[in-house]
Amino acid sequence: MLKKGLLLTAVVVSSLLFGSKVFAQEVPALAGELFQYHRGQDIFFMLMLVAFLMLFIKRYEWGVCLMTMLVLTVSFPLYFAVQTIYFGAAMDIGLVILGVVCAITLIIAAGMFLGQIKTWQYIVVSILFVIAYSINEWFLFTFLDGLADAGGSLLVHAFAAYFGYGVILALRHKKIFDAPMAVTVHSVSFVWLASMLLWMLWPSFTTALLGPEQVIGGMITTYMALMASALVSYLMLLAINKKIDPLIYTYALLAGGVTIGSTVDLVGPWTAYGIGIAAGVVSCLSFVYLHPALEKILGVRDVMGVHNLHGVPGLIGALFAIPFAGGVQVSGAVGTVIIGLFGGAVTGLILRALGRNEAYVLDDEESFSMAAPRANEGIPVPGDGGISM
Amino acid sequence: MLKKGLLLTAVVVSSLLFGSKVFAQEVPALAGELFQYHRGQDIFFMLMLVAFLMLFIKRYEWGVCLMTMLVLTVSFPLYFAVQTIYFGAAMDIGLVILGVVCAITLIIAAGMFLGQIKTWQYIVVSILFVIAYSINEWFLFTFLDGLADAGGSLLVHAFAAYFGYGVILALRHKKIFDAPMAVTVHSVSFVWLASMLLWMLWPSFTTALLGPEQVIGGMITTYMALMASALVSYLMLLAINKKIDPLIYTYALLAGGVTIGSTVDLVGPWTAYGIGIAAGVVSCLSFVYLHPALEKILGVRDVMGVHNLHGVPGLIGALFAIPFAGGVQVSGAVGTVIIGLFGGAVTGLILRALGRNEAYVLDDEESFSMAAPRANEGIPVPGDGGISM
Amino acid sequence: MLKKGLLLTAVVVSSLLFGSKVFAQEVPALAGELFQYHRGQDIFFMLMLVAFLMLFIKRYEWGVCLMTMLVLTVSFPLYFAVQTIYFGAAMDIGLVILGVVCAITLIIAAGMFLGQIKTWQYIVVSILFVIAYSINEWFLFTFLDGLADAGGSLLVHAFAAYFGYGVILALRHKKIFDAPMAVTVHSVSFVWLASMLLWMLWPSFTTALLGPEQVIGGMITTYMALMASALVSYLMLLAINKKIDPLIYTYALLAGGVTIGSTVDLVGPWTAYGIGIAAGVVSCLSFVYLHPALEKILGVRDVMGVHNLHGVPGLIGALFAIPFAGGVQVSGAVGTVIIGLFGGAVTGLILRALGRNEAYVLDDEESFSMAAPRANEGIPVPGDGGISM
Repeated sequence: MLKKGLLLTAVVVSSLLFGSKVFAQEVPALAGELFQYHRGQDIFFMLMLVAFLMLFIKRYEWGVCLMTMLVLTVSFPLYFAVQTIYFGAAMDIGLVILGVVCAITLIIAAGMFLGQIKTWQYIVVSILFVIAYSINEWFLFTFLDGLADAGGSLLVHAFAAYFGYGVILALRHKKIFDAPMAVTVHSVSFVWLASMLLWMLWPSFTTALLGPEQVIGGMITTYMALMASALVSYLMLLAINKKIDPLIYTYALLAGGVTIGSTVDLVGPWTAYGIGIAAGVVSCLSFVYLHPALEKILGVRDVMGVHNLHGVPGLIGALFAIPFAGGVQVSGAVGTVIIGLFGGAVTGLILRALGRNEAYVLDDEESFSMAAPRANEGIPVPGDGGISM
Repeated sequence: MLKKGLLLTAVVVSSLLFGSKVFAQEVPALAGELFQYHRGQDIFFMLMLVAFLMLFIKRYEWGVCLMTMLVLTVSFPLYFAVQTIYFGAAMDIGLVILGVVCAITLIIAAGMFLGQIKTWQYIVVSILFVIAYSINEWFLFTFLDGLADAGGSLLVHAFAAYFGYGVILALRHKKIFDAPMAVTVHSVSFVWLASMLLWMLWPSFTTALLGPEQVIGGMITTYMALMASALVSYLMLLAINKKIDPLIYTYALLAGGVTIGSTVDLVGPWTAYGIGIAAGVVSCLSFVYLHPALEKILGVRDVMGVHNLHGVPGLIGALFAIPFAGGVQVSGAVGTVIIGLFGGAVTGLILRALGRNEAYVLDDEESFSMAAPRANEGIPVPGDGGISM
Repeated sequence: MLKKGLLLTAVVVSSLLFGSKVFAQEVPALAGELFQYHRGQDIFFMLMLVAFLMLFIKRYEWGVCLMTMLVLTVSFPLYFAVQTIYFGAAMDIGLVILGVVCAITLIIAAGMFLGQIKTWQYIVVSILFVIAYSINEWFLFTFLDGLADAGGSLLVHAFAAYFGYGVILALRHKKIFDAPMAVTVHSVSFVWLASMLLWMLWPSFTTALLGPEQVIGGMITTYMALMASALVSYLMLLAINKKIDPLIYTYALLAGGVTIGSTVDLVGPWTAYGIGIAAGVVSCLSFVYLHPALEKILGVRDVMGVHNLHGVPGLIGALFAIPFAGGVQVSGAVGTVIIGLFGGAVTGLILRALGRNEAYVLDDEESFSMAAPRANEGIPVPGDGGISM
């Protein structure tokens, strides 16, 4: 009994210290790039799913999708152009991945000010975001030395949350507290689908830029962290509220993937599991307690709870890498918060100058011809009931 | 004309005997593991889709998703821990695949007792299932010698069905025959989506553990079997009922993938096509004739028709490998039925002791805060119409 | 300033001329085939999504899915059999890809005559289509010499559109102009999902048959073309109508992928971006102006707007390759239109002889048992409210 316990301890400790099995074989460079093709495409997949994770607001389903396509198609080519033309980067799979990582960061951030700006203004946001994001990217990986963030806890998640906070603090819409948000059962089914597919795709995100010999290890740590956060989120919400709020659970179950970002290539499976537990706990507590407190103090509304899934778990993730990378993780976290908030605030002020929405607009009517479809749902509208195509 | 006929016969016969083109080239070991990364991730994808295949019960859509995440996040780490800590297995991609195969088997089985147990009890089920599954896995691949089941006809499909049967036979809920099941058009659209994506992902499941040189051949046999079952299911249902029942068709079209599991690496494309025809016929007949007969005789309800898609086609699949592997296939099939039924029955009795549901609960209300969303659908509830997040 | 401008010009021009970075490394043949496994499977994924792109017609959601499965499961094995048995093709991954490309072409074409034929007649259509498609495939790649169409602008998109046109011109249903088409919000959410996932999967389609060293370059040109068409479609629709019609936008945003097909392996990223701009403009103009004009002139209805996304952008795509391949592109385009129209017309006349639908049937009721599900939606039907399974 004791012997088995010791063995278990030894295995766990060695896993904690040395991570998973090291791969020593060679993969040809081109093959490595083709594997990155698939992981890179998975990130485009995830980017689309982030839109569907926000699909629960009734009468504002298509607007989220349109915003996603706009933001992607402005930010990616711009990032691509800046990197190749001004910085001389090679047009390779690595750059495609960096570009879609930039775009997905913006889409996460946009969840925070959805409905507060006009649709065409997402084009302006995208241009300003690419600048702010590039500064933070430079700060983390060029200015700082030895930062651990292969899976983007800081670069993507924390930056998205604080850029978004910067924007809503600058926009400071008073009317949004009165705006009710409505859900329908079927739209929430899309949220479940998006959350569950994001969960399973996550290792492609955290390992996209790792070398071939680190990918399987990174896949294992990522899944282990996600296993933990999905289980712990359920237990936490059950303990706190007796019932599960699906719009917290579908988000918080992903927290392990956010938090493991900085240590995906540094820890073993069971450490990753521990990090996932911490992520789930922190994210649930943020949703239940921190979220309403911050809303009250700051007077702004984080519609999608971006800060609870990406902000706090992202920062925590960076700190978990301190044993491996040292104090630079703290500098990285602080810098990301500052650059994010400042970049977001400047963006928000420019949007204000351009004329923000008068009221809180979360209605597809803003962008789409909705008369025909709504007539078909029994909502009385002027005009005929057919759709012209 | 005769010459062309002979040529055709020769080609078909040689395909039947020797399977598809043999690949002789080398793939570096690490590259082989990276290819397994993608096929393994596809199985996680399929696992999520199995939840959406069960999404047709009105007012019980989120519960299926929650069950799926609970069952996955308990069974996978447990399987992983047992294998690495007690049996000293390496933490590699093969183990990740074995783990998710274990989890998906449980999710298939859970379709059989959905609504009969409380949500937290899925945690108990998961622990007991991993034990029973591990025993069957040991029986099939260590105790038996030379069993052919690379694609899991027995390990996954048959075991899932008979474990599930064991559970419902032990639970033996009388009230379930009176419980009506309701569908909505949109939820059935999710079922279509899940079924069609499972169909296209299936080769990743059957080839996940094959060597690199067998993968393309296994992809071809799997798709051929699925082509046959999807076409034959349509023709069978049309012949029997004149119209198609979507909740039979979306399931039966997958039968070829279940049945080809034991021979995926052993037969050629046209033999696989023949196996797929048999699978479609057997699955449709099970849905239409065997299902109500078994319900009447056994007095329990297989809500999702798991036995019709996974049970019978899984057993048939094992028998199709007799020409290649011999009588061990029969031992494997019989053993899987016995271990499944027994393991399920023990699990069911423990669940009974823990206090099964009083009535047949298929309502998201059991686990989720549903007041707000239902208010938005026009269902009168106490409380306000907004959702707090 | 001038210097930077010159540098920019030089970079852009060299990209235009020489395309993206050339890869010189070796990939083992088997590894190359395994990479094709994943790109090939992605095309099966896209094939399923094409069904969901057509899911917006109320009360005709399941019929689209059933048609897709029927058409796939008849055309693929038939194509596979003809190629291996009559032409002695090897049963390898290349043939699987050619087979699913054939099937997806038919599903695109079927969008044009959806609801005009009976469900079982799709089996007849599939057989006739495989013949016509094989003739066009032979014409493009065996009869013609040096045609550029690696990504299928002609083989797939243009052929689908003109085959479809041939069918509806031969069927010539007068009643279809009076038939209203209705949409629901949730079904359109499926269309968004399908469109966005098709967008991200598209590089797997255009690069499926390219050599390993051309895949990353093809991925980049494809995404760049898609970035451009998705942005330009928004701007065009906004300029023309002030608001966005989601059933134009979700289609037109894909036009870049259609048009880049012939030049995917020939141009650099920024040329591809330019091609994508042209594609978006042409597709939007086709939807808004050409579509109603053609309907009026020809007296037939292209329900899904197949000609606007696949027909015109496909032909334009072929012409963009003239600088690389010469006048053969014109021959290929003209031949594809003729073979498509003629093959479609013959098919349409045979369908007429077999007895086309009397009226325009776009109702799941034609094929499915709908009493139970509609009862659950509050639509009064005879019979009980439960579904028997």
